[in-house]
Amino acid sequence: MPTREQVHNFAAGPSPLPTTVLEEAALGLLNYEETGMGICELSHRGKEFKAVIEGAEADLRALLSIPENYTILFTQGGGTGQFSAVLLNLLSAHRLANPVPAEEFKPPVVDYVVTGSWSSKAYSEAQRLSLPPFPSCPSFSEPRIAASTKSTNWTRLPSKEEYNFNKDAAYIYYCENETINGIEFPPKPEDDSAFPFDLVPEGVNLVADYSSSFISRPIPNIEKHAVIYAGAQKNLGPSGVTVLIIRNDLLVDTTQASKLGCVPPVPITYEWKILADNGSLYNTPPTFPIYVSALVLKHLISEKGGLQGLEKTNKAKAELLYQTLDDAESKGKVKLVVREKSARSWMNVTFTIEGEGQEKKFLEGAEKRGFRQLKGHRSVGGIRASIYNAVTLDSINLLCEYIKEFCGK
Amino acid sequence: MPTREQVHNFAAGPSPLPTTVLEEAALGLLNYEETGMGICELSHRGKEFKAVIEGAEADLRALLSIPENYTILFTQGGGTGQFSAVLLNLLSAHRLANPVPAEEFKPPVVDYVVTGSWSSKAYSEAQRLSLPPFPSCPSFSEPRIAASTKSTNWTRLPSKEEYNFNKDAAYIYYCENETINGIEFPPKPEDDSAFPFDLVPEGVNLVADYSSSFISRPIPNIEKHAVIYAGAQKNLGPSGVTVLIIRNDLLVDTTQASKLGCVPPVPITYEWKILADNGSLYNTPPTFPIYVSALVLKHLISEKGGLQGLEKTNKAKAELLYQTLDDAESKGKVKLVVREKSARSWMNVTFTIEGEGQEKKFLEGAEKRGFRQLKGHRSVGGIRASIYNAVTLDSINLLCEYIKEFCGK
Repeated sequence: MPTREQVHNFAAGPSPLPTTVLEEAALGLLNYEETGMGICELSHRGKEFKAVIEGAEADLRALLSIPENYTILFTQGGGTGQFSAVLLNLLSAHRLANPVPAEEFKPPVVDYVVTGSWSSKAYSEAQRLSLPPFPSCPSFSEPRIAASTKSTNWTRLPSKEEYNFNKDAAYIYYCENETINGIEFPPKPEDDSAFPFDLVPEGVNLVADYSSSFISRPIPNIEKHAVIYAGAQKNLGPSGVTVLIIRNDLLVDTTQASKLGCVPPVPITYEWKILADNGSLYNTPPTFPIYVSALVLKHLISEKGGLQGLEKTNKAKAELLYQTLDDAESKGKVKLVVREKSARSWMNVTFTIEGEGQEKKFLEGAEKRGFRQLKGHRSVGGIRASIYNAVTLDSINLLCEYIKEFCGK
Repeated sequence: MPTREQVHNFAAGPSPLPTTVLEEAALGLLNYEETGMGICELSHRGKEFKAVIEGAEADLRALLSIPENYTILFTQGGGTGQFSAVLLNLLSAHRLANPVPAEEFKPPVVDYVVTGSWSSKAYSEAQRLSLPPFPSCPSFSEPRIAASTKSTNWTRLPSKEEYNFNKDAAYIYYCENETINGIEFPPKPEDDSAFPFDLVPEGVNLVADYSSSFISRPIPNIEKHAVIYAGAQKNLGPSGVTVLIIRNDLLVDTTQASKLGCVPPVPITYEWKILADNGSLYNTPPTFPIYVSALVLKHLISEKGGLQGLEKTNKAKAELLYQTLDDAESKGKVKLVVREKSARSWMNVTFTIEGEGQEKKFLEGAEKRGFRQLKGHRSVGGIRASIYNAVTLDSINLLCEYIKEFCGK
């Protein structure tokens, strides 16, 4: 029966958390800061939990250098919930900014950059929610694909000339890192596959799903974004909490927009403004996931050198693993899924093992060595090594040794 | 600095949890069943977590005797999320059951029984989401108040003759226990303030918010309900997970309903069918809150005598505390908020301390004796002792002694 030290957890999410954080959380579960009560047993409106959530917000703002004109929110429903909330809130914001009579109002375009499974799902959700509510009515919006790499099976990112943004779009949407496919926008603007911030039309809101690369390295051009969101369960904390970073002018009263007409109704828990007005405490928040996230943030700042430290370590981890896999590929033993090198994710490394029965053999050998949760997503197959913040360079070294051994040195 | 044993936690939610459960959860946080990984670090699709969620479902079904034609779901967003989801899913179900052309379709009435703060909020949300999407369109539904005790400030429940249900309503909604006001429908049908199941028109869907009385005693007439839901953070587990019990015919494809028109669009995470089709794992669930809830269910079944044992203990706890308060009231020292005796909640006991400065004095004395989180909700004031499953009869005895002492024996 293995200890934590004997196991190397490459889960895609929920993902490993730092042991010291979990040890502190285990104490907090029984008796939080000597209150005689556990963290899950305290009112979310009491002074103890308020200090937790406000501390998490301040630490996150410092860690990511989030400008003052953005609000940080903690909510529920995951990235999938925000697929809906992004459309609902930004259509309301667009409507309030265009308060013409309903009969003069034209449903706006919303632009999606589709580079993998998650951005595909976000686009589908925009289509679902935009259906005309009555056959005699227009659609609520016109979801468009502004760029897609589906034809090459998500193995690369669009090049600059493939983007086609609409200057009147209510927003442009992209997913920074596609967890399932292992593809990520490179941070350097000189890379051809970098996200083309310079092509975003002035005044158009830019939305990024950062779920699986959040706080793994700096966010390029954070101030060019309208909204950034992330599920916690990769780099930040346990599943059940979602972090939103929203430019303050987009915290709008959706009921007011509904009264103007031509927008879909917004369930109150998905209205960003009501969350903001109540400091993320409009209704009972997921207190334990927020608490552990707060502990992780403190740990990253004090023990891991903040975002610069994380960037350095994560870069080294990814480079080592990709180099090992490139070597193995040159020997014909493995194949990397993402063909465009600069688009390879630092967080989710996807590859296949070549040869009949070899994948099974690889996974069995991995299991024996204490490597866990390496099986690829059911929609892609193969192997996926997710190497989030809490996965150490030591674990990567051991995995690389095993890959070399498996492929014959 | 107090230990857990020195503290008596009367929080309204999040609420106390059994110490043995928290001790087990603290171990599971670091190394779940000797996997070398903590429960928060395991894939929600792996065999370990599947066993947890399926076990929780089976235990809950057994505990509450939930009939086979109901599906149990675990989701996010709290009771407030379900204020929206109830309307959205049941309007879609109603539309699919009435597939006439859009121009012939008449928006249905939805009936609300309003007996306190939470049912008021649920009603307001139905109004928000029903607004006509375009000025030329009808409303999506017509929310009606089928009974209300607002005029008596939620200090009693409606009597039978005050209900006015619509036989064509898409559903009837009530809140079984109003956490803030401390009012609850009595379980015995002979009580005048019992919920009038016999008045519910045949074929009309009945929806109950059971958030703060869930698994505290049997649910009367469970099979007469279409939907029952509850946030976990009172009797079941940590905040962040919501339990739904839904009659199978109401698991409908809301996109199909949207295509027929005349219904509001449904964010995918609030569609019950997609949750059911994926065994509550459509998107990443709040794994830790579900895990602790699963442990609590096992504890209630094996240590607390199941629902009959809980009912007996909870009845004894409530009777003792109300008797003590009635005696104190007769001495003019306190005043119970809920004036109708049979409508007094077993879970949330609300009262005020009479006399200038006496409430502050009462709370200070309570704090010294280890009583915590007794302050009433900010909208009601006074004192609220929430005495959920994890609050022991011993704690109630100590609180009663203090009340007697405070009032002068």
